[in-house]
Amino acid sequence: MGLLSKPIKTLDDLFVHTLQDIYYAEQQITKALPKMISKATDPMLKQGFEMHLEETKNQVKRLEQVFQMHGQPAKAVTCPAIDGILEEANDILGDVKDNDVIDAAAAAAAQAVEHYEIARYGTLVAWARELGRDDCASVLEQTLKEEKAADAKLTDIAESRLNRLATQR
Amino acid sequence: MGLLSKPIKTLDDLFVHTLQDIYYAEQQITKALPKMISKATDPMLKQGFEMHLEETKNQVKRLEQVFQMHGQPAKAVTCPAIDGILEEANDILGDVKDNDVIDAAAAAAAQAVEHYEIARYGTLVAWARELGRDDCASVLEQTLKEEKAADAKLTDIAESRLNRLATQR
Repeated sequence: MGLLSKPIKTLDDLFVHTLQDIYYAEQQITKALPKMISKATDPMLKQGFEMHLEETKNQVKRLEQVFQMHGQPAKAVTCPAIDGILEEANDILGDVKDNDVIDAAAAAAAQAVEHYEIARYGTLVAWARELGRDDCASVLEQTLKEEKAADAKLTDIAESRLNRLATQR
Repeated sequence: MGLLSKPIKTLDDLFVHTLQDIYYAEQQITKALPKMISKATDPMLKQGFEMHLEETKNQVKRLEQVFQMHGQPAKAVTCPAIDGILEEANDILGDVKDNDVIDAAAAAAAQAVEHYEIARYGTLVAWARELGRDDCASVLEQTLKEEKAADAKLTDIAESRLNRLATQR
């Protein structure tokens, strides 16, 4: 925690801190997705990433809405978890040479990102409800549903196409 | 990828690399859990972490079994994703002062770890099947089920106890 950050004493402080963490994470994902789009060769995967980039931009706006509803400035705090997950995604996409194997690796890397978000939004929804902020919970839940759907779609593309194509190399 | 690592050309190479990644991750989790156990004050959460430490040690052995079944030496490669997730867990447990709020934060941090593992084992099971290694898939699937159960148990403890206790601060 930075020297100027507010100390975390209550569940409300923890909720706000976690909003700031996922706000940073969504911004980093917005920056990382164009590279994944350019690396992907399978048309369904590429299109899935393009759609998810648009969804992610909207999720950033939703977080700004939640900050406002909760009377807090929209602020990002560095999230070492997403930095590590995206660093690993970047490393693996650099290490694999064959296009079909890159697609399988890219889908798996994206699923690690989705699962981080599912964990965080799941927690945020539960904390918002406990804090009596059902209004914030319902906005955060829209994103949680999108992340789960994105993960399920990646499983479907990987298991129906990408993994099979990658074994032919 | 280290200079001495084998280049990733095929789905089989990617499968082995991801086994090495999660082998490192499980080892780091084994090292991190005792600190989480010592920080947790809620008896159900503490007991849940203690049980999961034993499960994790067994998951390490299962990975060694899969390496052997696949004719590969058990080797770990640095996994920046788990390093980042555990760094973030450590930061938050250091930043929060109240015990009940620490418990809520610790459960959430553990769920981020579980979700990373769910993503990776889900991928590994699918790749093992695609590679015709149903034997490896079935061993990996045992761990996948344990990780999903651990995540569900954490949701249950958090939503039935920890979050409520934390709002009373």
